[in-house]
Formats: sequence, structure tokens, C-alpha cells
Amino acid sequence: MRDAYHEELDALTDKLVEMTRLVRSAISRATTALLDADLHLAETVISQDEEVDRLFAEIETSIFDLMARQQPVAVDLRMIITALRMGTDLERMGDLAQHVAKVARLRHPDSAVPPELRATILEMGQIAERLVTKTGGCIATRNVESALELEQDDDAMDRLHRRLFKILLDSGWKHGVEPAIDVTLIGRYYERYADHAVRVARDVVYLVTGSRPHELVADA
Amino acid sequence: MRDAYHEELDALTDKLVEMTRLVRSAISRATTALLDADLHLAETVISQDEEVDRLFAEIETSIFDLMARQQPVAVDLRMIITALRMGTDLERMGDLAQHVAKVARLRHPDSAVPPELRATILEMGQIAERLVTKTGGCIATRNVESALELEQDDDAMDRLHRRLFKILLDSGWKHGVEPAIDVTLIGRYYERYADHAVRVARDVVYLVTGSRPHELVADA
Repeated sequence: MRDAYHEELDALTDKLVEMTRLVRSAISRATTALLDADLHLAETVISQDEEVDRLFAEIETSIFDLMARQQPVAVDLRMIITALRMGTDLERMGDLAQHVAKVARLRHPDSAVPPELRATILEMGQIAERLVTKTGGCIATRNVESALELEQDDDAMDRLHRRLFKILLDSGWKHGVEPAIDVTLIGRYYERYADHAVRVARDVVYLVTGSRPHELVADA
Repeated sequence: MRDAYHEELDALTDKLVEMTRLVRSAISRATTALLDADLHLAETVISQDEEVDRLFAEIETSIFDLMARQQPVAVDLRMIITALRMGTDLERMGDLAQHVAKVARLRHPDSAVPPELRATILEMGQIAERLVTKTGGCIATRNVESALELEQDDDAMDRLHRRLFKILLDSGWKHGVEPAIDVTLIGRYYERYADHAVRVARDVVYLVTGSRPHELVADA
């Protein structure tokens, strides 16, 4: 049986995994709200970001408490430090999903996404979900190999982001400036969401190995 | 005389202040590079971001080292944890200055900023500099009052950000989609730069008082 101290550390992991579930659900609903101009769905994303913030506040409190009482060392110390960083990134991913939902709300009853961009945005949303699902798995299982793969998965998001600008700058673009601004920001939100998922995965690598991913790749 | 342990903690503070100096210089040069379409200056910002990254890597190494060897508690523990967070935010501010410089480089020999937006962007750059200067002062002196003021200073950035969108969406806008995209992203970079400066200031408040700024304000 685990002692109380290690149970608290395990609880930290569980809460981080729960954060990945919440921010995955948020980006999924935000994407649908955006594409379907679904005001109600957008509102749920906006209001439920509080849950993500509350969970992160709990994680922060546990961490400061654990550090003050237990003076953790070695891998436990790495766990606590990386949990704080992972929580910070996941909290930000919640904010970014909320930003997407706010654009949906702002343009309701219209959709902020013109028809020729729907497929690209849908795919960005799907990749964002896939990344965060994988990140959650990495946190739960401490799978380094899977965590290292996330960097490549993120390349798909960067490709979509470039495709989006290509469509915006095409001479056939006839929606004017306002939708271009919306889509520029939306694209940035998805791209940053993915970047934060990759950072969390990098912290899993550091947690397990004590090395940064670039050090492992340089060694390989 | 301070012992070696506390000298190491002081060195952390010095390095964080040095990071604020570097990212202040970076955003200052990036703004000039953008407005003057100065390719050489843009290149210096882009290449010198490595210095910011290196300094942050040093801070991270010291922190992990201090935690492993010293098992810090109470205010020292808060110092170490907040130093890690502040370093993360400052490193990101360096990236954002670099992003601004990259837009300048991309559009060279043209300027990415149409004439009617120059004054707004210039002011955003000035406020960014003022915020980070103040943040650096807060880190060095641990001045809570000054740190709490930064939230208001950031409101000025938000106002400029809104003015920027107003100009972009004005019927008189005749520069088309590409400059609108550039300016949307540039505006976002300045706004995020300011947000990170405010986060660092909040961490100073937490470091000194053990309370979050919103708790202090609620108490007032």
C-alpha cells in the first residue's frame, strides 16, 4: 500500500489527467460551436472554463502544501515541479478553447468561419483533440515514446495553420477583412493550444528521464 | 555576510532582472524594426533571443540544483517556485518580441504597418517597454504596491488593442487582407507580452506576501 505522501502525488497525476479531459472537451465543443454557430454550446465552453481554473488552483495548493511539508527530493521533486508547469499549460489550453468559443459567440447567429475554411478549421480542432488525448495518456502512463511522438503530431497542426493563411491570402478570398481577422486569431488559438500540449508532453519526458527531449534526441 | 545558499537565491533574482532587461531591449528594437522596416535590427532581435533562452536555462538549472541540495522551505521555497514561473513568462516575452521582429523581416523592404496604424503600434511598444521596466523593478525591490499597479497599466495596452481593431475594421481601410492579418498578429503579440509582464508582477506579490493579488484586493 502507498503511504499518504505518495497517494497525494498520485492524486496530482489524476488531477492533471482530469484537466486534459476538461480542456479536450472544451476545444471539441468550441470547434463545433464555431462551425455550427451554436451559441448555447459556445456559452458552455465559456462558463465551464472556471472548472479548469478551479482544478488548477487545487493542484497549485497541493503542490505548495506538499513542498512545505514533505521536502521532496529526486523524482518526487521532479513530479511536483513538472506538475506545476503542466497545470499552467493545461490551464492556458482551457483559456484558448474559451477564446475560440468567444469568437463563435461574437459572430452568432453567423458563423465566423467562411465555407472554404470549414474543412481546415475542423481538422485543426480534430488534431487539437488528438494531441491533448495523447498528452493525457502520457501523463497517466508516463510513456516517454508516446510523449516524444507529439512533436511530430504537432507538425500537422503547423501545416494546417499555413494552409489557412494560404486560403486567406488567395486572390479568390472575397469575405473581406473582418472574417480574415477572426480566422487569423482562431488559427493562432489552435496553434498555441497544440504548442502547450507538446510542452506538457515534454515535461512528461523530463519527469520520467530527468532529461529534456532535445537532449534525448541528441543522444540517439 | 550572506551564506552561499542565500547568495545563490540572490543570483536568481539578478538573473531574472537581467532577463527583463533583455526582453525589454528586444521589444524596443522589434518595434523600431517594424516601423522603420529595418531588416538588420529585426535580425538582431531574432538572433539574440538565444541569450534569453540561455539565461532561462541557467535559471532552471540553478533552481533544480537548489531544490535538490537545499530543501528550501517557506519564503525561500516561494522564491524558487516563483523564479521558475517568472523565468517561463520572461522567456515567452522574448519569443513574442522575436515574433514581432519576424513580421518586420517578412515584409522587408516594406513596413508591415500601414501609416494610420503607426502611432498605435508605437504606443503599444512604449507601453510594453514601460511594463517590463516596472516588472524588472518589482523583481529587484520586491515592491508589492508597484506590482499591483501593473494591472492598471495593462489596461492601457488593452485599450490600444481595441483601437487597433477599430482602425482595421473601419470602412476607410484600404490595405486589404494581408496587412490586416499582419497587424492582427502583431497586436496579439504585444498584448500577450503585456499579459506575461503582469503575470510576473503577480508572482512578485505572491512571493512577498504569500497571497495572490486578487486575495489582497478582496481584503482591501
